[in-house]
Amino acid sequence: MKLSIVIIGDEILLGRVTDTNSGLIAKTFSESGWQVAGVRTVGDNAADINAAISQSLDQSDLVITTGGLGPTRDDITKSVLTDIFGGSLNEDPAVTANIEKIFAGRGLVLNDLTRRQAWVPTSCRVVMNRFGTAPVMWFERNSHVLVAMPGVPFETRGMLGEVKELVTGHFGTADHIRHHEFTVTGITESDLAERLASFEDSLPLGFKLAYLPSPGEILLRLDGAPGAPDSIFDIHAGNLRSILGENLAGEGKLSPAEIALHKLRGRKWTLATAESCTGGNIAHLFTIISGCSDTFKGGIVSYANDVKTGILGVDISTLATVGAVSDDTVRQMAEGAATACHADCAVATSGIAGPGGGSPEKPVGTVWIAARTPQRSATKLCRFTGDRTAVIDRASAAAINLLCDLLD
Amino acid sequence: MKLSIVIIGDEILLGRVTDTNSGLIAKTFSESGWQVAGVRTVGDNAADINAAISQSLDQSDLVITTGGLGPTRDDITKSVLTDIFGGSLNEDPAVTANIEKIFAGRGLVLNDLTRRQAWVPTSCRVVMNRFGTAPVMWFERNSHVLVAMPGVPFETRGMLGEVKELVTGHFGTADHIRHHEFTVTGITESDLAERLASFEDSLPLGFKLAYLPSPGEILLRLDGAPGAPDSIFDIHAGNLRSILGENLAGEGKLSPAEIALHKLRGRKWTLATAESCTGGNIAHLFTIISGCSDTFKGGIVSYANDVKTGILGVDISTLATVGAVSDDTVRQMAEGAATACHADCAVATSGIAGPGGGSPEKPVGTVWIAARTPQRSATKLCRFTGDRTAVIDRASAAAINLLCDLLD
Repeated sequence: MKLSIVIIGDEILLGRVTDTNSGLIAKTFSESGWQVAGVRTVGDNAADINAAISQSLDQSDLVITTGGLGPTRDDITKSVLTDIFGGSLNEDPAVTANIEKIFAGRGLVLNDLTRRQAWVPTSCRVVMNRFGTAPVMWFERNSHVLVAMPGVPFETRGMLGEVKELVTGHFGTADHIRHHEFTVTGITESDLAERLASFEDSLPLGFKLAYLPSPGEILLRLDGAPGAPDSIFDIHAGNLRSILGENLAGEGKLSPAEIALHKLRGRKWTLATAESCTGGNIAHLFTIISGCSDTFKGGIVSYANDVKTGILGVDISTLATVGAVSDDTVRQMAEGAATACHADCAVATSGIAGPGGGSPEKPVGTVWIAARTPQRSATKLCRFTGDRTAVIDRASAAAINLLCDLLD
Repeated sequence: MKLSIVIIGDEILLGRVTDTNSGLIAKTFSESGWQVAGVRTVGDNAADINAAISQSLDQSDLVITTGGLGPTRDDITKSVLTDIFGGSLNEDPAVTANIEKIFAGRGLVLNDLTRRQAWVPTSCRVVMNRFGTAPVMWFERNSHVLVAMPGVPFETRGMLGEVKELVTGHFGTADHIRHHEFTVTGITESDLAERLASFEDSLPLGFKLAYLPSPGEILLRLDGAPGAPDSIFDIHAGNLRSILGENLAGEGKLSPAEIALHKLRGRKWTLATAESCTGGNIAHLFTIISGCSDTFKGGIVSYANDVKTGILGVDISTLATVGAVSDDTVRQMAEGAATACHADCAVATSGIAGPGGGSPEKPVGTVWIAARTPQRSATKLCRFTGDRTAVIDRASAAAINLLCDLLD
């Protein structure tokens, strides 16, 4: 069965806010065997919203929209939905009660614009939003379903499970399509593709292998053919595991930080970070993982040299002779972080993220990374291409991957 | 003139990688007066790519695609483009030379799959990619133009300026549409909409005011009517400034960290951070700003209590009596960060990001934030709704906004 997604809002269309809802919805439903036909993003314009929804309904069993349901004047989705599905906008007392409860809980006064969020098309069934004021709305036309969800990301995330249950209740379970993902590290996409060429040739009709690369890792997704027996799928998944060998970092999609956390827990070791050019991003990548506090003790962002010497204990003479972006400095930073945070292991970065600060000897993108465990330590000189954000992302992934190598 | 964007790739469509290219392209062209008609995301499937490109070409003067140009088997965009625009795939020696140069610079060996990136449709004009191996391709059909760009974000970012110049050279400058943005803080979207109701009624036909909310700030975007005189636009922009008053944090779109950095530089004060529940995210938000090192000295991520006491000097008795998530702790964290990093100002956070760790007295979402300058200090108890990511994002914005309040 086919799903299309429509993202509504000038803030997304004009690039002011990055859409993460479509990815989450697509991931959630594709993992249950739904085929994602496409995603369309349109602005707060009735004609464009109408066209995107109508075309998506024609080509899909299910359409999920997010956004365009806020209280302000540029939010016109509900009237478009009334045009498409019929009925008129009426106040729903249960939604009003929900809004009043939310506002009372936050100690806020309800104004008339927010009250308007309780006006919903008579052609829809309301699913109460447990995370915000804009209701989720369920529409049906012939055998097609449209679910309109709010655009605030945590409301979408919060309500998605309930929406998926309702969809499964309505459509039944999707065609049985097996799929499995493999997190691969330590090999380029091209080399991996060469190594897997004959494996891909060996796959039965309808099987598909997709390469989903990101810095420091490649996610391989193996899809079975619809209706193919589990035993056949398992044989090919097993063959893939054998060919990947030590480049297989883990089953499923893992971030480098998740891989590292998993390995650290296996050893019962704790972690600290010392970051210069990555500026707190490595600590952030660990601390967005729920439950990390059993392993991650803390970190130091040592942007200024006196923070490197004062908290991390880097030698002033090291900074004076070889500079902050050096093998010696980054090794001392890692040792200093482990000591200061009473941790077993540490990673450290020092480099030039750019766009300024480069020199002929140390151009922008030059980053020294270090990792240490109670048993081993390593440093590595990296030269990353890309702009400031890319250098920060790549250096973060490289440092975490260096730690992972030491933990193997 | 109308622009449509097509994002190609299973990794985006299935939510494995978040698309940031479409937002950047839309923002860049809309600021030059281009009307963004819509964005479509499709998977690595020839029929879907063909349909999305063909429909976008029909309804737009310019179509920009990203992705689908990699060396692996699932990248089929070039053959679809040959189907649409004619010609055949031929090796371009200049592209081969570019790829060989890039690989030599990285010390990598060129394999046959990467060599295939130099095969381009004879119906296109090649724009050399200065940031990677996949060439940018320029196609024309009747008066419509399609530009196919690589999907790697820093390559898209890097090549976009050159693509925009070529587009301007081809189409001329777009219709003159004035627009201006205002960063607004300290007011809810509903209250702001009520305050601006009569201003919106006063706008001439064709003018448009859009609300683009994100945690801790609302971006207002005022668009003039096509061809409206500058003097009229300036009068209404001036009226809007007066009505916004002290809620106007700055002209244009500024992040809270950019606002804070601007104010800190005005005072010649430096900054340090002490983060528990935000886990390095505040430091990251400052250090992604190029040139921040003149002001941001460093920070401590104090996840474990012994990091709070050891590096930040939080009293053990405070932690034992009122706990880590308390007014006293977060105030001591801010003071400790300023002292440890030799900084004038500091922000600190301590709270429960969830999903675990909550209690009836301190439920998930409870966060104490603190800020201090040489002249003032403040703490604040916040209760955020949303999941772990939302709490981290909101607590980060709230802490930076508290600092901004102290700097006014």
